[in-house]
Amino acid sequence: MNNIKDLDKKYVLPTYARADVEFVSGNNAIVVDANGKKYIDFASGIAVCSVGHANKRVNDAICKQLSNITHTSNLYYIAPQAKAAQKIVEASGYDMKCFFGNSGAEANEGAIKIARKFGEKDGELKRYKVITLQHSFHGRTITTVKATGQEKMHNYFGPYPDGFVYADNIDHVASLVDDHTCAVMIELVQGEGGVQPLDRDSVQKLAKFLKEKNVLLIIDEVQTGIYRTGKFLASNYYDIKPDVVTLAKGLGGGVPIGVVMTTLKDVFGAGDHGSTFGGNFLSTTAACEVVDILNEMNESGELQKGIDYFDSELEKFYNAHRDIFTSKVGIGMMCGLRVKDGDTLTKIISNAREEGVIVLKAGRDTLRLLPALTITKEEIDEGFTSLNRTISSL
Amino acid sequence: MNNIKDLDKKYVLPTYARADVEFVSGNNAIVVDANGKKYIDFASGIAVCSVGHANKRVNDAICKQLSNITHTSNLYYIAPQAKAAQKIVEASGYDMKCFFGNSGAEANEGAIKIARKFGEKDGELKRYKVITLQHSFHGRTITTVKATGQEKMHNYFGPYPDGFVYADNIDHVASLVDDHTCAVMIELVQGEGGVQPLDRDSVQKLAKFLKEKNVLLIIDEVQTGIYRTGKFLASNYYDIKPDVVTLAKGLGGGVPIGVVMTTLKDVFGAGDHGSTFGGNFLSTTAACEVVDILNEMNESGELQKGIDYFDSELEKFYNAHRDIFTSKVGIGMMCGLRVKDGDTLTKIISNAREEGVIVLKAGRDTLRLLPALTITKEEIDEGFTSLNRTISSL
Repeated sequence: MNNIKDLDKKYVLPTYARADVEFVSGNNAIVVDANGKKYIDFASGIAVCSVGHANKRVNDAICKQLSNITHTSNLYYIAPQAKAAQKIVEASGYDMKCFFGNSGAEANEGAIKIARKFGEKDGELKRYKVITLQHSFHGRTITTVKATGQEKMHNYFGPYPDGFVYADNIDHVASLVDDHTCAVMIELVQGEGGVQPLDRDSVQKLAKFLKEKNVLLIIDEVQTGIYRTGKFLASNYYDIKPDVVTLAKGLGGGVPIGVVMTTLKDVFGAGDHGSTFGGNFLSTTAACEVVDILNEMNESGELQKGIDYFDSELEKFYNAHRDIFTSKVGIGMMCGLRVKDGDTLTKIISNAREEGVIVLKAGRDTLRLLPALTITKEEIDEGFTSLNRTISSL
Repeated sequence: MNNIKDLDKKYVLPTYARADVEFVSGNNAIVVDANGKKYIDFASGIAVCSVGHANKRVNDAICKQLSNITHTSNLYYIAPQAKAAQKIVEASGYDMKCFFGNSGAEANEGAIKIARKFGEKDGELKRYKVITLQHSFHGRTITTVKATGQEKMHNYFGPYPDGFVYADNIDHVASLVDDHTCAVMIELVQGEGGVQPLDRDSVQKLAKFLKEKNVLLIIDEVQTGIYRTGKFLASNYYDIKPDVVTLAKGLGGGVPIGVVMTTLKDVFGAGDHGSTFGGNFLSTTAACEVVDILNEMNESGELQKGIDYFDSELEKFYNAHRDIFTSKVGIGMMCGLRVKDGDTLTKIISNAREEGVIVLKAGRDTLRLLPALTITKEEIDEGFTSLNRTISSL
């Protein structure tokens, strides 16, 4: 570990405030550090390890694929890409087509490109404005940083592209739509913004309004997608029909992948967009297996059972510590507890690690929990036992 | 294949003009399609499969890593990330630090962010302009599309960020530098732009001029890096000291990865940039093994022997068909032949596939060859035999 820490400090740019721990192995919701200490992982690499660590089905599928071929150019047909697209579209319930990139940021870049091309008219910038929400997070490219509705993010890297407009909240969006608006882009549960689900009626009302105005609704499901909320998409949970959906984190079970999918099947022609790695044999083979596993868990009822159990234990934990936590937020396995103040939250996260459970922060004051969707009852129990010890140790 | 083609048409956005072939397996520089037909691959997934298809060392390293852990958040130390950073920096010979993303586009976004932050002064947009070259290609995000110096790419997706300036050629760059210029970003051998290496003296002269002006030199080595030109970086070949270098394609041997490395070790603070997938156990384990393999081949002289043999066979082929090809271009295993006209080139690429060899296009009229760096003498011979048959069949 000392060696790794030194190497990291010497050779890696200091963009992360890393916690003093190095994980070396895992198994479902358990991770083990370089000293052999075991933790329950309620963070899943920020919702990435959707089917747990070292998932045997995913790993077997990947290793079998690698023994054949890992990557070719998108100049040729790629069977698992076509199959992954089919599985994703069918699970979504929407009549869409997919484009594959390598991250959530790339997926959102694709969504903005779709919206801008949709809004373009005879080579003129006709409708180009994209409305996003305060406290949103859409990525780390220059354009998705600007799409992110957090003022503090808009430093250093300008000039940023024009055309992003921020709404204070979901009910404020409609009033900002004008003749130059091509799209509204929102997360239904803001991941970085505090795990607060948007109001269902407000979202449905907005979706209807945008349809009337012929303005696209882009749902950023980079964090909420792939059964994170209990449904394949949070959009399904909200019972809306978005025009564009983006996916990433949980889709590859740890393999870098991003997807933008849209009902606008003809918006892009050949050459309008592209990716060298995107949709290759490795990433889409992983995605196929992840979606299969979660589809099966969904159909068998096992997924909902896990969610219900996690929620009941979280509720118990919340009720036992009302002096620390002010509310319980989230949907499905994307949930959290609002903490009375930010200092206490920082202490909880660091003490929790001491006590053997990995948890996350969202916004200033939210304890964020994103366990593997495959987490077992025993792992949930052990995690909350550690969290209770954490609170006692404050 | 028919089924896959139908699925692709039904579920994948039509951004690629796919050739009518589906590869299902490979071995070093050989690929096999769904009908069992064998090809010599002179394209390597556009320089991605640097150590060949189904490389056993890379696959064993990946599968061993996956059995332990695939991904955690960058909130914690990641051993193979630190090791990959060390290997990359040491092989480069430069005193730099790395940031890991998931693609060439993300690497170039990182480079532009570094340049802009370097140019920023007390919260003001002081120096923000980035000069790039005509015919360059820097990626598919909105910002890297604008950084790309091809007018035809700047459609549909605006408003683009301001601050990109295009030089007609390398000798034109210095005259465009003004008080608002923070960086110059160039490929030393333009991949999409025709595989034409820049003039060595001009590059060295520019590097010296920029150093005097305190303007950053960013070398986009997304395609030229990782021994593609025979040296670890094309920058080594040109004997310059860039401030920022970007890497991607060949680094992961097929696993999506991108790196931006810089001498400006303190340009980013915690939170200034980030990636969820970037630098995870999977991608950096692959990168470590790829760099090890190629370092060994370089040290043993095997790499240069392969390059020399490929070059001599390409020279023979070129000389045998001077009626078709007007010049031979490139460095190392990034090479090509200028074709007398674009129609003939299109025919060569499609006929070559019939004859069992996969080749690429660059720009309007360049036949581009990017074989695996591990390609054998036998594979090279077979590839050129097929290419000779291709020319006879025109």
